[in-house]
Amino acid sequence: MRNIRLVVEYDGTGYAGWQKQEKDRTVQGEIEGVLLRVLQETVNVLGAGRTDAGTHARGQVANFRTESILGAGEIRDALNALLPEDIVVRHADEVPLDFHARYSARERTYSYLVTLKPSALLRNFSWHVKYGLDITRMEKAAEGILGSRDFGSFCKGALEVEHHDCIVTHSAWSYGDSTLRYEIRANRFLHGMVRALVGTMVNIGRGYTTLEEFSAILGAKDRSEAGMAAPAKGLVLESVSYEGSA
Amino acid sequence: MRNIRLVVEYDGTGYAGWQKQEKDRTVQGEIEGVLLRVLQETVNVLGAGRTDAGTHARGQVANFRTESILGAGEIRDALNALLPEDIVVRHADEVPLDFHARYSARERTYSYLVTLKPSALLRNFSWHVKYGLDITRMEKAAEGILGSRDFGSFCKGALEVEHHDCIVTHSAWSYGDSTLRYEIRANRFLHGMVRALVGTMVNIGRGYTTLEEFSAILGAKDRSEAGMAAPAKGLVLESVSYEGSA
Repeated sequence: MRNIRLVVEYDGTGYAGWQKQEKDRTVQGEIEGVLLRVLQETVNVLGAGRTDAGTHARGQVANFRTESILGAGEIRDALNALLPEDIVVRHADEVPLDFHARYSARERTYSYLVTLKPSALLRNFSWHVKYGLDITRMEKAAEGILGSRDFGSFCKGALEVEHHDCIVTHSAWSYGDSTLRYEIRANRFLHGMVRALVGTMVNIGRGYTTLEEFSAILGAKDRSEAGMAAPAKGLVLESVSYEGSA
Repeated sequence: MRNIRLVVEYDGTGYAGWQKQEKDRTVQGEIEGVLLRVLQETVNVLGAGRTDAGTHARGQVANFRTESILGAGEIRDALNALLPEDIVVRHADEVPLDFHARYSARERTYSYLVTLKPSALLRNFSWHVKYGLDITRMEKAAEGILGSRDFGSFCKGALEVEHHDCIVTHSAWSYGDSTLRYEIRANRFLHGMVRALVGTMVNIGRGYTTLEEFSAILGAKDRSEAGMAAPAKGLVLESVSYEGSA
């Protein structure tokens, strides 16, 4: 028995998210379908992050166990030859049997792109916000969530997990040509957390929510207090890091 | 009679190019179709550059004459409300009657994106080149076409135009994360010129064509001498400049 790790890039536009579903096309489902044909074996491909429908990944990490004698590079090449063009395996390697893409992960990084003007080229990869935004207030809000705290106010389906504590090590907005890009890195993310944070910070940027109210929302630990979730299509799972990796 | 100028961004993936065709969906056709409904008038929308099928634009410029009393901003908003999401009018203004998007243009800028690894997110906006590329040689080739010269070797359908002289004021490669981006600015472009140049420069980068051979190709003024055209999907019409504009 061997354990294979994949680093996967995908355009989530045409998928009902990462996680396998009965009827809808998902990224996990596509990869498992191709692996069944290549390995002649039913494998379970575990992803580090369960991205929502329409959300993208530049560096999703997944692993699966196999009896196959194919090398990791051969598995990567076979997957890339047979997968649709909107899913690419960037890297594959063999890892110790106890490696688990989700539980072994040390940190994950997500990015979120906001455009201030409608964009034809970025329409599937960004959220077009029509309001003027005060970037300074949004930067302050982003800085304000650094460190360890309870993110219960930014979690959908609060009963799924034992606790809502996350350690945020990076949280910042940067400004480009009519775009605002948010990047956040943390040891774990709750369901819907980045989208709820971005939606709330955009409310702060447009002056609808104050920084004091943002602090109160964080303290409330109740999802109904936060702003609307930002659309899934602006979100990208950038990378996942593990002990001993960069 | 008024003359309206549009700056248009589009994702060319779903279109048979800019120019109107009998059967296929084109960007000009879509814009004229919406204008017919908005203005109740048949207009002819002249584009500064006739982009090929699959080629994109961040700043195509077009103009049309109309009897409408609608303001330029109203026309822009109506177009954006009714056009498909992959075409966006970034800007509209009223210009003098003698303004012609194509003939009044002073310079056009195109970019071309090459990826060195397959990419799910950039698949419709880049050419994946599987060979190792010597960027230094490609930079030298790019510098070598600066100035005024005959580009007959990089022109499809050579009989369409009176002469093949172009003045190239910018031509350079830049290097990103597993990507190479070429940018070229000139007073005019011949049909297929950027794609033929990129295809030939990639041949130089992989060591298939030498810089001396490149000089000979330029001198030959014969399209059959140059390399294969690079795929249309990596090309973007970035901007068009006019007298008195940046």
